[in-house]
Amino acid sequence: MLNVVILGTGNLAKHVFGAFSKSGKVQVVQLVGRNQESLKDFATQTTTSDDFYSILDADVYVIAVKDDAIAEVSSYLKDKKGIVVHTSGVVEMSAIEPENRGVFYPLQTFTKGKAVDFSTIPICIEADAPQSLETLRILAETISEKVHEIDSEQRKKLHLAAVFVNNFTNYLYGVGEEICLEEGLPFDLLQPLIMETAEKVQTLSPKEAQTGPARRNDEKSMASHLELLKNEKHIAIYKLLSEAIKQAYEKEL
Amino acid sequence: MLNVVILGTGNLAKHVFGAFSKSGKVQVVQLVGRNQESLKDFATQTTTSDDFYSILDADVYVIAVKDDAIAEVSSYLKDKKGIVVHTSGVVEMSAIEPENRGVFYPLQTFTKGKAVDFSTIPICIEADAPQSLETLRILAETISEKVHEIDSEQRKKLHLAAVFVNNFTNYLYGVGEEICLEEGLPFDLLQPLIMETAEKVQTLSPKEAQTGPARRNDEKSMASHLELLKNEKHIAIYKLLSEAIKQAYEKEL
Repeated sequence: MLNVVILGTGNLAKHVFGAFSKSGKVQVVQLVGRNQESLKDFATQTTTSDDFYSILDADVYVIAVKDDAIAEVSSYLKDKKGIVVHTSGVVEMSAIEPENRGVFYPLQTFTKGKAVDFSTIPICIEADAPQSLETLRILAETISEKVHEIDSEQRKKLHLAAVFVNNFTNYLYGVGEEICLEEGLPFDLLQPLIMETAEKVQTLSPKEAQTGPARRNDEKSMASHLELLKNEKHIAIYKLLSEAIKQAYEKEL
Repeated sequence: MLNVVILGTGNLAKHVFGAFSKSGKVQVVQLVGRNQESLKDFATQTTTSDDFYSILDADVYVIAVKDDAIAEVSSYLKDKKGIVVHTSGVVEMSAIEPENRGVFYPLQTFTKGKAVDFSTIPICIEADAPQSLETLRILAETISEKVHEIDSEQRKKLHLAAVFVNNFTNYLYGVGEEICLEEGLPFDLLQPLIMETAEKVQTLSPKEAQTGPARRNDEKSMASHLELLKNEKHIAIYKLLSEAIKQAYEKEL
């Protein structure tokens, strides 16, 4: 049984804590954070503390705080023997002060109060020492079936890719919602299409799954769409993305 | 029991045929199309024909052909008594020649060989005559729980919204895939994130679900992302979408 201390009380800390507890294979011996209100949520389940000078001993210290605070939080752990990891997609492993360090990055978006199935979430691990990497792999495999060893450069690229498929995609959902609301139509008309679009690329490559006027270079439909749009930003996005799709499939037409 | 003739043998025709057959409440009395090879797929299940001058009588004629061919196919039906509908998101109802006309637009993306659950797919109906509208509602409700009466203008806007949440979103998945492949990372690392991003907006509004550097106006992360991108189109998309998100949430920061 691995012993873990979690540092942080936010969304990610809550989800990771929940996954470890559920696994039955990891003991979260302590949860440390500044926010006393949030600590209360964990108080019946493990030892909590808001004192970074009285962190308990553990095999792994999981820092789940904002990117900017990782270096500072890690500094409280420099005399510890366990492995100190952060959970960020963008911060270098070297931001962690203690030498026995690593990264434990679950590639998913976490929503407050919404349960996620950790077993399918890729966990990207990194460590300097081979033995630490092995421990992180064992730890990650207690909660996920998809554990990948990835270096800091790859992780940054992966996080960038995640911005495209999560942040930007969500923004486009918002544009769809706005267009619906302008016409007095409920957003839930689009919800099944959004699900199916995501489901399609679980088995097909997005390249193969692409459809629509831009892919067919259907100038007439694109021109009539542009006439319907009022918002300047939406027009610019429609033009840029259509142009990009057109270019990508030009040779096939 | 409503009698239906389907005109067309493509993806949508196949899916609609399948849904009507499965419902047990609609009899597809004939399937008419030009493509003899495709007609064979239906030959054991209903009467098929490639002769548009020998279309059987039915309550509803469902035209499921390419947008450009709708008007012509409808012209073969001008002496029929049943309702003639097309299934397009963009074509005006008036493109149909016979007077007893309407629209039967299932808002979903259909993939060859991939089953979809029609019961959750919104079907948007339109007709000139109230009685035709009533028949179309009964027909649509045999296969879907989400039947909406929507006029041609609203339908065009809805189709435009669908381009944003389906075509453009899928293109962004493709950008994510490219970035992964550049780093030798498999696309399946992103698949759970893509599913969760879509699932989130089944219950939350996209406005509330938005996260990421642009929403937080985290200039540092955005600058480092831009440094990682090589493809000019990806850079332009990153900048435009980040700017749009930034603007949308500016007041909240």
